[in-house]
Amino acid sequence: MIFHESTIRVRYGDTDKMGYVYYGNYPLYYEVGRTDLMRDIGMSYRQLEESGFMLPVHNLEVNYHHPAFYDDLLTVKTYLKDLPTARICFHYEVYNEAGLLLNSGKTELVFVDARTMRPVRPPVFFLDLVRKYF
Amino acid sequence: MIFHESTIRVRYGDTDKMGYVYYGNYPLYYEVGRTDLMRDIGMSYRQLEESGFMLPVHNLEVNYHHPAFYDDLLTVKTYLKDLPTARICFHYEVYNEAGLLLNSGKTELVFVDARTMRPVRPPVFFLDLVRKYF
Amino acid sequence: MIFHESTIRVRYGDTDKMGYVYYGNYPLYYEVGRTDLMRDIGMSYRQLEESGFMLPVHNLEVNYHHPAFYDDLLTVKTYLKDLPTARICFHYEVYNEAGLLLNSGKTELVFVDARTMRPVRPPVFFLDLVRKYF
Amino acid sequence: MIFHESTIRVRYGDTDKMGYVYYGNYPLYYEVGRTDLMRDIGMSYRQLEESGFMLPVHNLEVNYHHPAFYDDLLTVKTYLKDLPTARICFHYEVYNEAGLLLNSGKTELVFVDARTMRPVRPPVFFLDLVRKYF
Repeated sequence: MIFHESTIRVRYGDTDKMGYVYYGNYPLYYEVGRTDLMRDIGMSYRQLEESGFMLPVHNLEVNYHHPAFYDDLLTVKTYLKDLPTARICFHYEVYNEAGLLLNSGKTELVFVDARTMRPVRPPVFFLDLVRKYF
Repeated sequence: MIFHESTIRVRYGDTDKMGYVYYGNYPLYYEVGRTDLMRDIGMSYRQLEESGFMLPVHNLEVNYHHPAFYDDLLTVKTYLKDLPTARICFHYEVYNEAGLLLNSGKTELVFVDARTMRPVRPPVFFLDLVRKYF
Repeated sequence: MIFHESTIRVRYGDTDKMGYVYYGNYPLYYEVGRTDLMRDIGMSYRQLEESGFMLPVHNLEVNYHHPAFYDDLLTVKTYLKDLPTARICFHYEVYNEAGLLLNSGKTELVFVDARTMRPVRPPVFFLDLVRKYF
Repeated sequence: MIFHESTIRVRYGDTDKMGYVYYGNYPLYYEVGRTDLMRDIGMSYRQLEESGFMLPVHNLEVNYHHPAFYDDLLTVKTYLKDLPTARICFHYEVYNEAGLLLNSGKTELVFVDARTMRPVRPPVFFLDLVRKYF
């Protein structure tokens, strides 16, 4: 398994009139989580794109337990639990500073060839990096 | 069942460098869908809040089938399939102008009392409006 | 002069904890205004890009007079007051339903060749469309 | 003068189909800049709000020189050049990792009493903190 922790400070613009972080902002926070995890293992998502691959999101799920508020310093825990196939699945947990689990979710992304936009196997250099952790 | 159709024009700022509508923007489009549905049956979400109720999102699910592009005129079909209890569940389908189903999803929202922020039954006047359609 | 009116319904996600539309969302509303104006005169921004031109924003100015609130139906009035040169300048006014001027602003955009990303004169077919109004 | 440097990693969702950071995202980056500056001198914007004050933005100006791209690590330099009166003015410069100035701008914010929403003088405890730097 690969695991990574990111921290995100909640911006004013992320909140809504309820005073909560708008529910539609967590996909952006999750993106930060999986992006940081990939950079951490040595293959940034930017490099992956520059190598001719893209990773559109196929599936998103979020379970909201508690709200986050303005200026909260959130911790996004991102997990890669399985070796990627044509798909790669990330799990996420968002905590506030008090250690309360605010929400949890997952995304499934698909490897596509940037020229043809067709699904492909993940690149070998990426799999090699990932395999070290399993 | 209650059903409503909304149209949304994709803004430039909604796209990402892939040229697609960013996956994290669909929760915002879904919000438009359920908001329009509620206004349509005679109880806007704004009025609901002014009556002392709030509807934080408890659960979100999106399945992405095809991308939307800049300037696309999307149709969001929103469905309320079951009578609300303490929770209300909306289903969504997003189509492009060619009639292609781009993504489908659902959200579960919880009625809370705006003063106590505790879960409550939906207000009677809201249930009365909804029941007409079932 | 060319003038266009767009209407925008304020989404929940557009508000912040102050209950106002977040100040950073108006550039997105202005984009809707100028995009609608261009589509209206017969040359959508999408077509312009497909013809090999891009219009990055060079300058933005917003003066905030009054806040907009959730669910407000806003009117964005967009003005093209001068014939475009290498630059094109749009002016904006945002009104609420009561006719109150909420904010006014302007953007200056630059025509660039999409291949070279260098500034160019606006395409002739675009200038021809615009000239009819002056 | 008070000066603060913040770093912001560009998210995928911040980009648009041009591959640039969408012009409407910089107000959000500027918010990070001024918020970090205030936290740094000992009075977070959150505390200011909890003390009964609000700071709606009155005026925004952005001059775009060069684009930022996905995954760029940006530096936002925020300057408070003058002692706040009923208004407080922040200046911003955004640089990429190569040290290129991408854009510069300013915002003017107004102190308001959160109960009455009327303009007020800045709170004494805030002015005392700021004065040390002038």
